[in-house]
Amino acid sequence: MTHRGVAILGSTGSIGTTALRVLARQGDRFRVSALTAYRNAALLEQQAAEFEPTFVGLVEHGAGSDPRWQRGPSCLTQAAVRDDVDIVLNAVVGSIGLDATLAALECGKRVALANKESLVMGGHLVAAAAQRGGGEIVPVDSEHSAVLQCIAGRPGIEVRRIILTASGGPFREWSRDRLGAATVADALRHPTWSMGRKITVDSATLANKALEVIEAHHLFGLPYDRIDVVVHPQSIVHSFVEFVDGSVLAQLGVPTMELPVLYALTHPDRVTDRGVPPFDPVGNSPLTFESVRLDDFPALALGVAAGRAGGAAPAVYNAANEQAVAIFLDGGIPFPEISAAIGGALDAFGALPGDTRNALEAADAAARHFVRARFGC
Amino acid sequence: MTHRGVAILGSTGSIGTTALRVLARQGDRFRVSALTAYRNAALLEQQAAEFEPTFVGLVEHGAGSDPRWQRGPSCLTQAAVRDDVDIVLNAVVGSIGLDATLAALECGKRVALANKESLVMGGHLVAAAAQRGGGEIVPVDSEHSAVLQCIAGRPGIEVRRIILTASGGPFREWSRDRLGAATVADALRHPTWSMGRKITVDSATLANKALEVIEAHHLFGLPYDRIDVVVHPQSIVHSFVEFVDGSVLAQLGVPTMELPVLYALTHPDRVTDRGVPPFDPVGNSPLTFESVRLDDFPALALGVAAGRAGGAAPAVYNAANEQAVAIFLDGGIPFPEISAAIGGALDAFGALPGDTRNALEAADAAARHFVRARFGC
Repeated sequence: MTHRGVAILGSTGSIGTTALRVLARQGDRFRVSALTAYRNAALLEQQAAEFEPTFVGLVEHGAGSDPRWQRGPSCLTQAAVRDDVDIVLNAVVGSIGLDATLAALECGKRVALANKESLVMGGHLVAAAAQRGGGEIVPVDSEHSAVLQCIAGRPGIEVRRIILTASGGPFREWSRDRLGAATVADALRHPTWSMGRKITVDSATLANKALEVIEAHHLFGLPYDRIDVVVHPQSIVHSFVEFVDGSVLAQLGVPTMELPVLYALTHPDRVTDRGVPPFDPVGNSPLTFESVRLDDFPALALGVAAGRAGGAAPAVYNAANEQAVAIFLDGGIPFPEISAAIGGALDAFGALPGDTRNALEAADAAARHFVRARFGC
Repeated sequence: MTHRGVAILGSTGSIGTTALRVLARQGDRFRVSALTAYRNAALLEQQAAEFEPTFVGLVEHGAGSDPRWQRGPSCLTQAAVRDDVDIVLNAVVGSIGLDATLAALECGKRVALANKESLVMGGHLVAAAAQRGGGEIVPVDSEHSAVLQCIAGRPGIEVRRIILTASGGPFREWSRDRLGAATVADALRHPTWSMGRKITVDSATLANKALEVIEAHHLFGLPYDRIDVVVHPQSIVHSFVEFVDGSVLAQLGVPTMELPVLYALTHPDRVTDRGVPPFDPVGNSPLTFESVRLDDFPALALGVAAGRAGGAAPAVYNAANEQAVAIFLDGGIPFPEISAAIGGALDAFGALPGDTRNALEAADAAARHFVRARFGC
């Protein structure tokens, strides 16, 4: 059996280390061809020793010591386009991931995409690159993986509606007044998923779900009025797909990223794996669903509106959110100000054009500057 | 667009009338080529006037008046093999439906199967007929339709386990003592599905679920230890499929047979239809799951054991159950005696051979005679 080569961009992060656990079990199908990390040189060195990739890259200059490693942000695209790489797992955080996605798609590779910014900022650039180069995007997010698994090769014309599930985050039952006093520690106390700090705060604001709605729009080619969100505190149903005949499929399981990572590698096939325990419907009963409190978590509606507006608006939304979350995590603003910062940035720059990489970078920078100036220290 | 011709065997029953409602909406894809009924000549006449099939049959001699109708049990196979019939919806109740299934499969037709006996009695005969004639079986049962929709063209080797859902019936929360005093009216009070009397009692004993486990074994080629049953009182999740990578898909929706009937006609495609209201996860919350009370509802384990035993055992199980339910509905035995009758018949005839149509008929007759003699009037 030929082994498919996998490049992991962001190998020392939460998704990256999960992927290496999966790949350690699936060594008869895949080999790790390339690893890149942002700055954790010590862990990267361990990973390189264990998986023996032909390429290792570190984004931050200066960190780490191995002279064979490639240095600087360009290591991401270098890893993505290598001949011995068939699948690029893009688990980089932030807009720095977009170039690698574009480069991999231009080379006809599969991109297992965990980098939200690729689609949120550059949805139409990504689609064009895939078209030109013959590459394909397979989502790694649990919600989008669920949707893909439910659609399972059926044509898009048969899909009537997607319903993304949201855990509701740590503040699901908090009153609006109480939200004003939420601390960083409160926001980082996610009820069901263990993730990085930034994405955990995004789950608390529901900005995370807004980004996922925009991604779903690009991934599955559905207009925004056919993408709904429902709160599901148990995080067992990872999303629903409603078809034109009224039938609904859902993908379920305990919350683990091992399955979405594996499925992104094997799609449309499935391979035997023990990363997920046998499903226990009785042990996971009851499954409950609630409407989103849109007024109390305004980041969701702001994000969907940015998606509908198009142009640079999604990039502005994403950049303003990233900057505002960073300030919140530093204790600079109270929790509700994250949404306020996003709203302010969208008011100021939401109508900018977004048709080129440069235009998107400019909008991103303008939004970050705006939030720092208005809300930062 | 060419219209696919549909024969409905059992057009005046619950599934048959549901199918005609669906077909009345889907007239640009399908035409009703043949209709047969058991004895309801008046309704059959109305249906024939509305849908103008080229063939009409009535199983009971003597009933009804139209001289153009075919009479007697052979009208079922006559309808099933006609040249203008592409799909045979077999919604006949009882073992009388098996011959029509076999004949249709031998002619290379699709059989949309609602007749449980075809697979329960004659699972291997049916498989052989499909192999010889190139026909295919698509299930109409909501649970098996759910499984088929979840598998959606993926190879069987990727399926690890099927979990069939059971409403639990009207006696889900009844103590064993109270079950001894259950009346016919109690048994007919199904919480979620509106169905015929016999199948409603089968839902109360869980014999219905045993028959579905046996059918699932034949339909999806899975051994019995990879088919589980879980009680789901809301009947919103119609079944689960667990794949080899640990992922689980489920098919959901409000309980209506319109969708499984439509899907059996269009599989693997889906067509726009308004038979199912938009899915409302919040309105259907919570979804709960419970273990089956196997000791209090022994008909389930008896049926699965009969399936595992093979030979004539499933036919004996089915015939004994049919006869015992008839006696129960006539007030002849208390509710728990239905399972006792099945168990007695299996002890007496469960080891008979079942490799031919005649052997199955003989076992069926022996089981019925046994139950009548021991439990009847």
